[in-house]
Amino acid sequence: MTTAERLGNISLGEAMFTQRAIRRFKPDPIPDEVVRDIMEAAIRAPNGGNTQEWHFIVVRDAEKRRMLGELYHEAWWAKRKDAGINGPEDIPPGKSPMRSAMRMANEFGNAPVMVLLCSTVRSSAGAGSVIPAAQNMLLAARGFGVGGTITTLHPEVMDRVHQLFGIPDTALVVYCIPFGYPRGAFGPVTRKPLAEVCGADHWASPFQ
Amino acid sequence: MTTAERLGNISLGEAMFTQRAIRRFKPDPIPDEVVRDIMEAAIRAPNGGNTQEWHFIVVRDAEKRRMLGELYHEAWWAKRKDAGINGPEDIPPGKSPMRSAMRMANEFGNAPVMVLLCSTVRSSAGAGSVIPAAQNMLLAARGFGVGGTITTLHPEVMDRVHQLFGIPDTALVVYCIPFGYPRGAFGPVTRKPLAEVCGADHWASPFQ
Repeated sequence: MTTAERLGNISLGEAMFTQRAIRRFKPDPIPDEVVRDIMEAAIRAPNGGNTQEWHFIVVRDAEKRRMLGELYHEAWWAKRKDAGINGPEDIPPGKSPMRSAMRMANEFGNAPVMVLLCSTVRSSAGAGSVIPAAQNMLLAARGFGVGGTITTLHPEVMDRVHQLFGIPDTALVVYCIPFGYPRGAFGPVTRKPLAEVCGADHWASPFQ
Repeated sequence: MTTAERLGNISLGEAMFTQRAIRRFKPDPIPDEVVRDIMEAAIRAPNGGNTQEWHFIVVRDAEKRRMLGELYHEAWWAKRKDAGINGPEDIPPGKSPMRSAMRMANEFGNAPVMVLLCSTVRSSAGAGSVIPAAQNMLLAARGFGVGGTITTLHPEVMDRVHQLFGIPDTALVVYCIPFGYPRGAFGPVTRKPLAEVCGADHWASPFQ
């Protein structure tokens, strides 16, 4: 059976319309064949001129995950500090994307799999060319009941991330995606109506 | 019927594994409801913190398409000239991504629909946050038998693109995707094997 066949059990519509960012994971491991299918889906994504200037690192080793988790935690707070938020006391209570992200920063190292998405060229075009693969990975993961969310790493930890995973100086870490079976459920996302974010032939003419 | 239901007829596996860049289009129009479904799929894509800092412009008006086609053609050659390629005579004969892209630059204005994907913030993080939506659009289009390909516009034409579509100076045009029914077929893409572009716990340790 091929990856395409194993992803034959979920429709495109269901995958897309029940895909949501999953930031809390069960500790259960993800079978190797599921990880492989997610990566096979990744490399089918479009990329500039089929140059495939990308490189992925699948992190499953327990010690590497622990260390990446620590770096992620440090990076998350470094980014908050850039924005004047110095600790949990500066984050408004109640459910919010930031509170949910803070919790994930605490638990990041517990995700059973993380994937670093790198560009082999250090340019914004190169970085962009890797991103469709991130969406393929998340959709394929959804197809197998696995969740994840796109994260970025703060420059403050980048040298250590390069060192930990042997990433050449000529490459750029674009995103880091933790994967795991969700605590909580997949389901529809909340979005502004299309007419607010889409124009017809002109920015300011709402698409109907 | 919802978009998710209309995208229920193709599996995720088939959509992903038969998605390829389509650069030659039939002149046939795309029904409005298909365009709408593609855009509904776009806005389900993940984006940073659900801030939805994106804006799309669907271009269907004949005159606007003609003008964007001219700008695209100029932009495509401006980018080639940056790389020392001054005309068709500098492009090696035979089938190649560049030759195929050159042909598309000639025909761009004939695509029945183009979509500009913009970030409402002018930063590379903002630009990146729009890109998963591009992949959702291309996969949804594939679900309806519609093809397209990600393109970028050269800075040389950007002021005129902003003017033509009333795009604020505070926004950034990230990608422009032409859509149409393919001349030619969908089908699998050619990619390097996973072990060449994916490491296990380390950049240089091939993922098996």
